[in-house]
Amino acid sequence: VHLEDDFWEPRRRLNRSVTLPAQYRLLESTGRLDNFRRAAGRPELPFRGFFFNDSDVYKWLEGVCWALSDGGDANLAELVDQVIDLVAAAQEPDGYLDTYFTYQRAGERWGNLRDMHELYCAGHLISAAVAHHRATGAERLLEIARRLADHIVKEFAGDRQPGVPGHPEIEMALAELYRETGEREYLTQAQRFLDRRGLGQIGSRDYHLDHIPLRQMERLVGHAVRALYLCAGAADLAAETGEAELVIALERLWKRTTARQMYVTGGLGARTSGEAFGEDYELPNRQAYAETCAAIASILWNARMLQFQGEARYADLLELALYNAALAGISLDGLSYFYTNPLADLAGDHRRQPWFDCACCPTNIVRLLAVLPGYFYSLSQAPTGVWIHLYAQGRADFILPDGRPFGVKQQTRYPWDGEIGIEIQAQGELALFLRIPEWAGALDPAALQINGIDAGIMLEPGTYACLQRAWRPGDLVRLSLPMPARRVRSHPHLFETAGRVSLARGPLVYCLEGTDQPDIDLRDVVLPAGATITAEVRPDLPGGMTTLRFDGLVRSPGPAWENRLYRPDSGERLGTHFSTHFKSFTAIPYYAWANRSPGPMQVWLRE
Amino acid sequence: VHLEDDFWEPRRRLNRSVTLPAQYRLLESTGRLDNFRRAAGRPELPFRGFFFNDSDVYKWLEGVCWALSDGGDANLAELVDQVIDLVAAAQEPDGYLDTYFTYQRAGERWGNLRDMHELYCAGHLISAAVAHHRATGAERLLEIARRLADHIVKEFAGDRQPGVPGHPEIEMALAELYRETGEREYLTQAQRFLDRRGLGQIGSRDYHLDHIPLRQMERLVGHAVRALYLCAGAADLAAETGEAELVIALERLWKRTTARQMYVTGGLGARTSGEAFGEDYELPNRQAYAETCAAIASILWNARMLQFQGEARYADLLELALYNAALAGISLDGLSYFYTNPLADLAGDHRRQPWFDCACCPTNIVRLLAVLPGYFYSLSQAPTGVWIHLYAQGRADFILPDGRPFGVKQQTRYPWDGEIGIEIQAQGELALFLRIPEWAGALDPAALQINGIDAGIMLEPGTYACLQRAWRPGDLVRLSLPMPARRVRSHPHLFETAGRVSLARGPLVYCLEGTDQPDIDLRDVVLPAGATITAEVRPDLPGGMTTLRFDGLVRSPGPAWENRLYRPDSGERLGTHFSTHFKSFTAIPYYAWANRSPGPMQVWLRE
Repeated sequence: VHLEDDFWEPRRRLNRSVTLPAQYRLLESTGRLDNFRRAAGRPELPFRGFFFNDSDVYKWLEGVCWALSDGGDANLAELVDQVIDLVAAAQEPDGYLDTYFTYQRAGERWGNLRDMHELYCAGHLISAAVAHHRATGAERLLEIARRLADHIVKEFAGDRQPGVPGHPEIEMALAELYRETGEREYLTQAQRFLDRRGLGQIGSRDYHLDHIPLRQMERLVGHAVRALYLCAGAADLAAETGEAELVIALERLWKRTTARQMYVTGGLGARTSGEAFGEDYELPNRQAYAETCAAIASILWNARMLQFQGEARYADLLELALYNAALAGISLDGLSYFYTNPLADLAGDHRRQPWFDCACCPTNIVRLLAVLPGYFYSLSQAPTGVWIHLYAQGRADFILPDGRPFGVKQQTRYPWDGEIGIEIQAQGELALFLRIPEWAGALDPAALQINGIDAGIMLEPGTYACLQRAWRPGDLVRLSLPMPARRVRSHPHLFETAGRVSLARGPLVYCLEGTDQPDIDLRDVVLPAGATITAEVRPDLPGGMTTLRFDGLVRSPGPAWENRLYRPDSGERLGTHFSTHFKSFTAIPYYAWANRSPGPMQVWLRE
Repeated sequence: VHLEDDFWEPRRRLNRSVTLPAQYRLLESTGRLDNFRRAAGRPELPFRGFFFNDSDVYKWLEGVCWALSDGGDANLAELVDQVIDLVAAAQEPDGYLDTYFTYQRAGERWGNLRDMHELYCAGHLISAAVAHHRATGAERLLEIARRLADHIVKEFAGDRQPGVPGHPEIEMALAELYRETGEREYLTQAQRFLDRRGLGQIGSRDYHLDHIPLRQMERLVGHAVRALYLCAGAADLAAETGEAELVIALERLWKRTTARQMYVTGGLGARTSGEAFGEDYELPNRQAYAETCAAIASILWNARMLQFQGEARYADLLELALYNAALAGISLDGLSYFYTNPLADLAGDHRRQPWFDCACCPTNIVRLLAVLPGYFYSLSQAPTGVWIHLYAQGRADFILPDGRPFGVKQQTRYPWDGEIGIEIQAQGELALFLRIPEWAGALDPAALQINGIDAGIMLEPGTYACLQRAWRPGDLVRLSLPMPARRVRSHPHLFETAGRVSLARGPLVYCLEGTDQPDIDLRDVVLPAGATITAEVRPDLPGGMTTLRFDGLVRSPGPAWENRLYRPDSGERLGTHFSTHFKSFTAIPYYAWANRSPGPMQVWLRE
């Protein structure tokens, strides 16, 4: 899959040329690589940083490996080899690998599964190794990962260990390692980790997701990233085993989460305390935690559900989190990151940072950008089909499950425009599945033509349109997804957005940023119910974007509110406590906020 | 001052007969008293609990001492003597007293002022000693406190120590010790602690309030209780020294805090993270921290501002916090406590607890209830006057600053009724100041009669009415403060309460509790703009209370919202997404919530 678009590909180039090299320097300067040198035979060096810092090296490595598959970058390839040298040297003769539990701490191995993240780090090493093998065909890192995985199976297959990782991740990794190697024992070990979970062996608090078996959970609670990684790993297992009980549980949790606990951006995990899910409809805007890693975890989970369920709602959610909650996590210059993603910042002081002591988010976003083309398409066997989940200019060549080659080329300005031309570049009978996003058709209907003639099928938003026919090279499918700006309302039980609407266009959620409306207190903006909202192409703004313009009101508290926070209803008309004037406003995509001069931001506008 | 009312006096009796004895048993069972036995010569006992647990013993002691002044309770008096024995035995020969820094930790004394709370604990010992001396006249605990205070002065008067307590409290304590003993050096030491603060000697984070001198602060930030205790201590200093710069700073901080950072209940400190003040207008309801101790700290600060400023707004705030934010902190049975006080609990799982490892709130509320009569009246010298700040049935006898005796008797059912009869029980020229609460007159005007004849003065809510005349025994002042239920609106910049109103009557804030409206989802309640709200005396409810009844709407999300959290505006009328029916609702005082079966609660209602 080759993206050739103006939205993702520039970001992915930046990822390769700026972000990944910058992160390498940070891994070096913060001692994360030195920890491997230390483990490889330099006990005199101090271990630096958090005990789970190996995972940052592995996540960066995974990102670089996926980036290598985009085409040759000699510098990155060399860095990969150097880091693999370090990892290889740090591995113990028995396959164990964790730079924290070396020398004086070697005796503490696997001693505190709840807190010490050994299995989490191991999972990320394995994920990196799978990426390396897939991207380059080289066996070296995969071999290291297999030795570690074999060691883990030996340690945890029996009854000696509770085998409940405090932070899930190893489940996804082992499932992928099974797929890459064919070694069934890896999948079985992932299953063990899942099956042993939920009995309180590592504690009763929901934070670690060991308080109740996943199959019995009614809703996601506790640490959001842990919960979502667990679901993603469970989805891998469900995909491989087809276990009905697990599928039903995952469906139940997915529905409950998306219907009660998700931000309009796709962000998840409302609470700062415990980086956790809140209760139903607990979605504060300014205090939103909505960790970047949780958005990426949601993408991981949805991508897996999509693969074995084939339902568009998973791709819808993947797209929503991708363009909004996750993408906001990195600056337009590729050099700074959000850890938390509030939906309103009235003080204007929430800014991206170049790094964090706990650097999970920065290293997660580089691997997301690098692997992104892998989320665009799927293939199916019965019927033989190509599924298009995401839209962007580019081309893709497949070997179908029945052995035939097939290719498609997308011509589109998506996400700025919903006109998508899909040119078929092969011959033969095939079902082409096109996602009709859930947001399409809210106002204007979507349309589908084949070679200029209406396809004659009902297009239902939130499903895949299926075009089953004998294709010829040059056949042109044209999908029109109208992108009028739309107002989005929230469930009436969502306390914090009562009386407010958010704006969206296509897959993008919009926000008002102070810098576009100077001298206006964003808290005073009111969007009139009937106001026309106009899309405006603005190449002059950073990165180029389509903004939304509307004529709104500035409704400022009048003198009656001076130095008062509360006032009794004195029978006067409420309007007398305000002064009002008109003003034109510009909204920008949420992902792009906080890239210019600091100032307030707001997603939900008073109506 | 003798309260003889049906509201406070039963609570104060419960405090003496149930709460204080129960807390004594907890101080014993949790090792807090054993820590004193240990310090007194039993190094083999382990220190138990937090390093600041001495403060709980002292705060309990202060509460019991004030309770002793209510009249003889032989059991409590005996407990006081036993605990003073323990405290005396734990004091070091040089006057130092902190049971944590004994034996192996003796060398660490005063080594970490930022975190280790030695000066905080010392402050509470001193406060308890002042209470003991005032209540009983006995010198014993005061002597212990003086030896500790002398030790502190010796340690901190010079330049050797930064002298910045990580948790303010000692400032109030030393000012009171100065008032009790006349020893000026104690006041000077309090002044030193204040003046050295704000230079970052104990760190730059606002959490400890050492990031900027108090006199330069524009708003309160950081840990709410620390900030408010600091303001209260600074107010003590301002009262004694009259320093204009300090008074101006305190006024500025008070105005900003009450106009931007305070809950409608008088609660303060919005954020869980750091138990801290939020930014302006950051006052989430469900996630409200609003620690009980912060409400009590606000009472301490306002009581002090009131004493030297004589402005009714301080008494208004004291009353607001007392009847609502603070009183909610203890259950009606006197045996469990809220640490945090949300203004909405939709899950219905926020319940009072019988104790906390960090037991600051339970021991704070017992001393508040015990000292309460002390907040009702003040005396002034020029003009010679008696100020009535709070209203409750009871009597008070004073020796005026000019040496004359004077007495008043209040006849009232306040806070349930605003008719207040004040009978003069002495003879002579005197200015009688009566607080006209800020809430009075919002709808119906207040009225004032003397011996049945209109007093003929303008009554302005939020000021003191002054009746200067030659009084005769039996003169009867009748103050009528009408108490219609009122709707209270919030400043338009307060995001979380947009489109909502809260209900209040007299000094009480009301809330809806699920148990009074079974089978209703509280999130669906709508209070119609024109609905009549009726007060209803309900002796049948726990403790007896006046409730508010109104006919409202239940506006439930319709089928269009099923399994959806967000939906685009599709041009339909929004009303079609709801089903609506009428229903009668009962609101109870906020302080009384969570005393019956668990269920949701909400202060702010959709209008």
